[in-house]
Amino acid sequence: MNILSKHIELAAEQVASLPGIGKKTALRLVLHLLRRKSDDVEKFSSAISRMKEFVRNCSVCHNLTDHDVCAICSSPYRDKTQICVVADIRDVMAIEATEQFKGLYHVLGGVISPLDGVGPADLEINSLVARVTKEDVKEIIMALTPSMEGDTTSFYIFRKLETTGVCISVLARGVAVGGELEYTDEVTLGRSVVQRTPYVPSLMK
Amino acid sequence: MNILSKHIELAAEQVASLPGIGKKTALRLVLHLLRRKSDDVEKFSSAISRMKEFVRNCSVCHNLTDHDVCAICSSPYRDKTQICVVADIRDVMAIEATEQFKGLYHVLGGVISPLDGVGPADLEINSLVARVTKEDVKEIIMALTPSMEGDTTSFYIFRKLETTGVCISVLARGVAVGGELEYTDEVTLGRSVVQRTPYVPSLMK
Repeated sequence: MNILSKHIELAAEQVASLPGIGKKTALRLVLHLLRRKSDDVEKFSSAISRMKEFVRNCSVCHNLTDHDVCAICSSPYRDKTQICVVADIRDVMAIEATEQFKGLYHVLGGVISPLDGVGPADLEINSLVARVTKEDVKEIIMALTPSMEGDTTSFYIFRKLETTGVCISVLARGVAVGGELEYTDEVTLGRSVVQRTPYVPSLMK
Repeated sequence: MNILSKHIELAAEQVASLPGIGKKTALRLVLHLLRRKSDDVEKFSSAISRMKEFVRNCSVCHNLTDHDVCAICSSPYRDKTQICVVADIRDVMAIEATEQFKGLYHVLGGVISPLDGVGPADLEINSLVARVTKEDVKEIIMALTPSMEGDTTSFYIFRKLETTGVCISVLARGVAVGGELEYTDEVTLGRSVVQRTPYVPSLMK
């Protein structure tokens, strides 16, 4: 494609560097921005710059925040005896969206994955152990993706915390709500039989 | 979705304001940018700011350019007696990509569309008439979208240029190359019969 303006080309290149955005889409977005008012474009690019400048990790749970300690860690309404261990801040958002968990989080920043060169030292595991040791934590809820890497990470953390005496639980695995048994994979269905739970009518809604 | 950082929320809002990008995608893109190095993010946002700052319309054809006159208008290799009239700069790119046209362009900036509040005065029609009057233009090629609005605009321009004696042509309409007759709409197929062209073997490749 013949682009007459170097500046348009550079901007389109940058937009196309985002995941899932191809060259044609990037050009369409960039031309859309060009048609907007200068103020709006300035708002757009400064919102991104400012985000990179001011957003940092919570010094307690490593969630993203604008402050030193994130809103969850500093909230007086959260149960500080429960810590939910997640890989990514998007997992925090997903669990928060359920409104079913009122404890604190600990964001590892990934999972152990030797193929991607991610070892335990690259994750926030030591700070988790420190939190469990120093603070009055009663339960650790492992909420990592049910994959080889997630399971490995959960097991690694389990071994690290074994001696602290903290209670360690894991997200329930089983048939999805609204899912059909016929289309549930064998491993999941098998596990849901083995780990069946008592029938409680009020939880069946 | 509960977003803990105001800065992330603002950035995601800006990205989601782009056409075809929803809230979830915007958040994914913004979190991707957050993981990049500060320099890279600075490059990203400044490429967009700079584009808005430096890109302007060519003073001759209203194509987008970094300079006063665009590369096509200032090229000594282009045929200055032919002007191809298009609605948008993306049409310039599309025609340039075919490498079949060596004349100049004139970008109207849209088509006449009363429903969208676009009248002839909002388009670069007067400057087109001025070019035809002042310069040595022999042919005007109307290359607008074959829609009601495009046809109206073509007709308006035709009436404006009638008296200048310039030759006015329009893009051929007919069956698409590689298209199947069976699936070609009736209007297009009908027109391609009425406006059939002499059989020239060398053009059939």
